[in-house]
Amino acid sequence: MTTLLAETVAAIRPLDAAAMAAADARHATLTKPPGSLGALEELGVRLAGLAGTSPPPLPEPAVVAVFAGDHGVHAQRVSPWPQEVTAQMVANFLAGGAVVNAFARQAGADVVVVDVGVATPLITADHDGQPRLVAANVRRGTGDLSVEAALTRDEAVAAIEVGITVGNDLVDAGARCLLTGDMGIGNTTPAAALIAAFTGAAAADVTGRGTGIDDETHGRKVAVVQRALALHRPDPADPVGVLAAVGGLEHAALAGFVLGAAARRVPVILDGVIADSAALAAAALAPDAVGAMVAGHRSAEPGAAIALRHLGLGPLVDLGLRLGEGTGAVLAWPIVASAARVLHDVATFDSAGVAEK
Amino acid sequence: MTTLLAETVAAIRPLDAAAMAAADARHATLTKPPGSLGALEELGVRLAGLAGTSPPPLPEPAVVAVFAGDHGVHAQRVSPWPQEVTAQMVANFLAGGAVVNAFARQAGADVVVVDVGVATPLITADHDGQPRLVAANVRRGTGDLSVEAALTRDEAVAAIEVGITVGNDLVDAGARCLLTGDMGIGNTTPAAALIAAFTGAAAADVTGRGTGIDDETHGRKVAVVQRALALHRPDPADPVGVLAAVGGLEHAALAGFVLGAAARRVPVILDGVIADSAALAAAALAPDAVGAMVAGHRSAEPGAAIALRHLGLGPLVDLGLRLGEGTGAVLAWPIVASAARVLHDVATFDSAGVAEK
Repeated sequence: MTTLLAETVAAIRPLDAAAMAAADARHATLTKPPGSLGALEELGVRLAGLAGTSPPPLPEPAVVAVFAGDHGVHAQRVSPWPQEVTAQMVANFLAGGAVVNAFARQAGADVVVVDVGVATPLITADHDGQPRLVAANVRRGTGDLSVEAALTRDEAVAAIEVGITVGNDLVDAGARCLLTGDMGIGNTTPAAALIAAFTGAAAADVTGRGTGIDDETHGRKVAVVQRALALHRPDPADPVGVLAAVGGLEHAALAGFVLGAAARRVPVILDGVIADSAALAAAALAPDAVGAMVAGHRSAEPGAAIALRHLGLGPLVDLGLRLGEGTGAVLAWPIVASAARVLHDVATFDSAGVAEK
Repeated sequence: MTTLLAETVAAIRPLDAAAMAAADARHATLTKPPGSLGALEELGVRLAGLAGTSPPPLPEPAVVAVFAGDHGVHAQRVSPWPQEVTAQMVANFLAGGAVVNAFARQAGADVVVVDVGVATPLITADHDGQPRLVAANVRRGTGDLSVEAALTRDEAVAAIEVGITVGNDLVDAGARCLLTGDMGIGNTTPAAALIAAFTGAAAADVTGRGTGIDDETHGRKVAVVQRALALHRPDPADPVGVLAAVGGLEHAALAGFVLGAAARRVPVILDGVIADSAALAAAALAPDAVGAMVAGHRSAEPGAAIALRHLGLGPLVDLGLRLGEGTGAVLAWPIVASAARVLHDVATFDSAGVAEK
């Protein structure tokens, strides 16, 4: 481990029990039946534990960081989409035309796009508009994980540190909630391999249909994941090694982004299966990082539910989305903000003159 | 039926099939894999069908109307809360101190409070601040449905028409999405009776723990619902009769509110079990009204899931909330707005220069 990753992991601490107890006690005084906000009360308590204070700060402004990368495994025909679509969609994000832009506009969240591993030079490399592009390409796409390591160990660390740095920079600029986003044609294949490696689940159970593939392609994809696991025998006790062997550049960067958020005590809302697979790597590097994670939604990809169960996280939104980009995280953000608002804004029985039962 | 109710029911028409087909076709051209937004795509198509145009208008501004009423059945000790809490919570809403106010502030929605049946004169009756209070008291609380009709037929119609009028006034003032809210100590008991009457489900299956009651109180509550159903034998083919026999003033007003929204072709987001029970009455009066309904969330009350299944609606949020007030509807509103945004904002493959698979 180099300094930034090691320092970040070392800075990650458990949730603050005193702040959580204070939030719990505060909930009981507010003008609502005890427990009547269900999962939002647990979420509010966790936000307090993360911030170390009750009420916790409102999680705004919120920024979704869309990490983009390409995948050598695309050569195995695991996706019907041409690889160029990764770069084309980056241009679409920067022009504000993708679904994540529409959702972010609705929610009042900012979007940044991070080129951590796109295969082709971005024609938008000198872009200085909004959303902002962070040029941090570690390698122009991974190796084909079904025949070789996706990344060297150094490349995996470099990508993780891109994620940490992006998270730190956003928090330094004022962000108080980080949302994960991703773009990478073929990136559900390494996500499936990562989830299998970290949870022990079978390839067939974690490998889904991504953007929507036919039975033949799905069968090929499952076989590719099986082959990669058999070839590399990734060891979950060595998370950087797992990311290098069967991961992706955006997966590694997202793991770092999650670690960075946890180290800075800022909540990070996980989007779909790519983020969930990265979160497993982050949790393997620093188990207390789970305290900073909020599962934005449950992707329709089967690996997502398996990863979230392994992390012990319940999703806030469960509407059959399987787009990525950060769309599920952005949809969930108002719910996270509302959970914090309760502890800020709601009157107590005493102050409102409302009788208790 | 008097004129306003009859006119409103007569104005309710099916969703516009051409607009729905146009929205469907538009979804297929947008820069995302087909179907990758899951339930949000169906929702966007329904919003187009309701508006009769694609893309549908953004559902904003949004207003949550909190209908408040009291219940004679409170005398049967079905709730541990004193009846005065209804009026006290109305004051809390008007002061901005309740959870629905906090959520509405977060979402940027307005709140209006409607006294359609609070038992005691509101000390805030001359309130002219924000949120606004609509004074439209039809009767100071219902009769005890376990021993007599909750309302006369005329009172039920009057309460329905309060809801229609509130909805019409809000739409006239610019609202483009109506959200249901409710307050009424004891109001899950009539909700359970309504759901049993309209769906044929057994009292024990639709009667829950409301704000959180012990086993003894729950047993009493189930028996009360059974007694009411046996006493009145409500006929689902006579929805006004059902509302009069076993309903509540806020339930009847909410049924009218839903009908008004459907007649004006504006989406109405249902909150929890009270709204769901009222929606069954609205659907019984005008089956096409279901086209305007969006199930905001699935309340933890068991009757909610049964009512939503009967209506054929899937909830957007499912987080164990059981508060009412409109809280679940407000949490869901950004998701509804995001579904509409997709059809407005997202670039096409052609316009963005993104390759298709």
